[in-house]
Amino acid sequence: MTRDRLPRVRLRDVAERAGVSTTTVSFVLNERPGTGISVDTRDRVLRAAREMGYRPNAAARSLRTQVTNTIGLISDQIVTDNYGGDLVRGALVTALELDHLLIVVESQDDPEVERRLVGDLLSRQVDGIILATITSDRIGLPGIRHGRTVLLNCTSSHALPAILADELAGGRDAANALLRAGHRRGIYLVGEVAEAVRPARERRRGVAAALGEAGVELEGTIECTWWPESAYDAVSTHLASGEVPRALICLNDRVAFGAYQALADAGLHVPEDVSVVSFDDSELARWLRPQLTSVALPYFDMGRIAVESVLGLSEEWAASQQQEQLVAMPLRERGSIAPPRRP
Amino acid sequence: MTRDRLPRVRLRDVAERAGVSTTTVSFVLNERPGTGISVDTRDRVLRAAREMGYRPNAAARSLRTQVTNTIGLISDQIVTDNYGGDLVRGALVTALELDHLLIVVESQDDPEVERRLVGDLLSRQVDGIILATITSDRIGLPGIRHGRTVLLNCTSSHALPAILADELAGGRDAANALLRAGHRRGIYLVGEVAEAVRPARERRRGVAAALGEAGVELEGTIECTWWPESAYDAVSTHLASGEVPRALICLNDRVAFGAYQALADAGLHVPEDVSVVSFDDSELARWLRPQLTSVALPYFDMGRIAVESVLGLSEEWAASQQQEQLVAMPLRERGSIAPPRRP
Repeated sequence: MTRDRLPRVRLRDVAERAGVSTTTVSFVLNERPGTGISVDTRDRVLRAAREMGYRPNAAARSLRTQVTNTIGLISDQIVTDNYGGDLVRGALVTALELDHLLIVVESQDDPEVERRLVGDLLSRQVDGIILATITSDRIGLPGIRHGRTVLLNCTSSHALPAILADELAGGRDAANALLRAGHRRGIYLVGEVAEAVRPARERRRGVAAALGEAGVELEGTIECTWWPESAYDAVSTHLASGEVPRALICLNDRVAFGAYQALADAGLHVPEDVSVVSFDDSELARWLRPQLTSVALPYFDMGRIAVESVLGLSEEWAASQQQEQLVAMPLRERGSIAPPRRP
Repeated sequence: MTRDRLPRVRLRDVAERAGVSTTTVSFVLNERPGTGISVDTRDRVLRAAREMGYRPNAAARSLRTQVTNTIGLISDQIVTDNYGGDLVRGALVTALELDHLLIVVESQDDPEVERRLVGDLLSRQVDGIILATITSDRIGLPGIRHGRTVLLNCTSSHALPAILADELAGGRDAANALLRAGHRRGIYLVGEVAEAVRPARERRRGVAAALGEAGVELEGTIECTWWPESAYDAVSTHLASGEVPRALICLNDRVAFGAYQALADAGLHVPEDVSVVSFDDSELARWLRPQLTSVALPYFDMGRIAVESVLGLSEEWAASQQQEQLVAMPLRERGSIAPPRRP
């Protein structure tokens, strides 16, 4: 296989053009102090380097300085999944601001690929590694590990810093949005009930806590997966029983999408007949009619904090000795909640 | 800022443990032929390296061999946008299969950031660069460029290989799906009419060509942007005029989503009253009720082909001297097309 590389301008090419030694060029370009090089010579070297389009070789430079200004982000499937984009975007934007290159790689959830990617990044001497998942669960760590590793959207059994959404407070906020509108009866939760899935578990706990403090009981749970089809089926079946809810707390926007479809098929209107509140604040929340009130996943902020942490810039957090940093989930109020028709 | 690096095992540490010179270790680990090193010594070195967890330093190795086994993918906003994930996934999976690391970076559509990213990747001596966009348009190339550059989902004014979806054939297939069901009148296009946007332009041309060959005329175009809200407004306004279409060709699934909502509000059913066909085959296509017949974007295949091309493995294409490689868009038939009520 032939390689059509652009010719590289080397240190000695610059030296020849400037009429100095390669050592002098190296000293100037690396801003080495105390070399006694004159301002004139320095300017001549810099001009020659600029004119010839000299670019320092990052591999060689990193061997000298032991700093590569690179962070590795290894995800299971955030990049190629449609839901985690803002985690990567927050990390990318922050890395650029802090003058670092973010190398994003993806294991496709294959432990062997993950092990190999960690090894690759270690041998490239990255300044730190962010391990991220879209599932927000406890993860098994790869056998080899960078000394500066931060977990993004997941936890592990090891004492590593972890950036997580504050799902518990988010659950409270969703329930409180209904309570503020005057709802006290006929409130159903719609979604996954598995204890093992952190967002489901914490969102449900937050909902139960807020309702409990207001002396309000959940009328029941309509069980389904995280997807529209499943939610449509479950809500349709519930409505067919003749029981009409007054409010639905859907565990994410896709579930709310399916619930909207089931309500429409049953001739029920949101929010006049049934109020709906949800989680994630994905694009769907704005596309549904009426637009959906949703508790937002703070993915951009989480990505930003992960980069700051891996570079040791989260002093406040480091000082707090907290292993988990919980990032607030803002409530986005739209048109899917109304006061109940009957009090 | 302190850095908690794991201690690195160096060549000389392995040499000391194996009781040989660093040169011998280097020869063994780099599998240098003709050195006359005994099998015993070789085994001792390999065992010492394994026991000490020695990992070759990729930066140093790349300086020696000039091959880094790395491909850079620079996108405008594919990673963090919700729609291009499969472009990256196809590239990632293929790079791994071909024993390459794909470094994914994103310019956030900022030319200055892009220039810097290209420079960074060049100084890391990547084997090639894939320039990708989500907008599928002609792009301005960065001032500096790798000798082996492939364009993914875009074109430029330079003679560079470009991987694109065959939108023209896709447009034909969408129209043919309606023709096969017996539609010959009341067919409307819904979406963007700008000539500058390649997918819109090519999809419309394909539709017009297929209809024209069947002696069928498009009844009209309902103009809107690529988003549900815009499509909802445009289709609602059209329906309010009293004119009921028999079939809608929506320029993407989000437009179809808005069209579905407008049809439902007007009491019209898909596909009994109005057939709908669309493009992209995003998740929405499966979530809508009834599920949407859609012409799929072949993003996974396009990502795969880009990696093969940048590594010089697309012999057939290279031999064809074609600058653009058009990748087929498969039609996914679902439940949104029915024969017209009146012929």
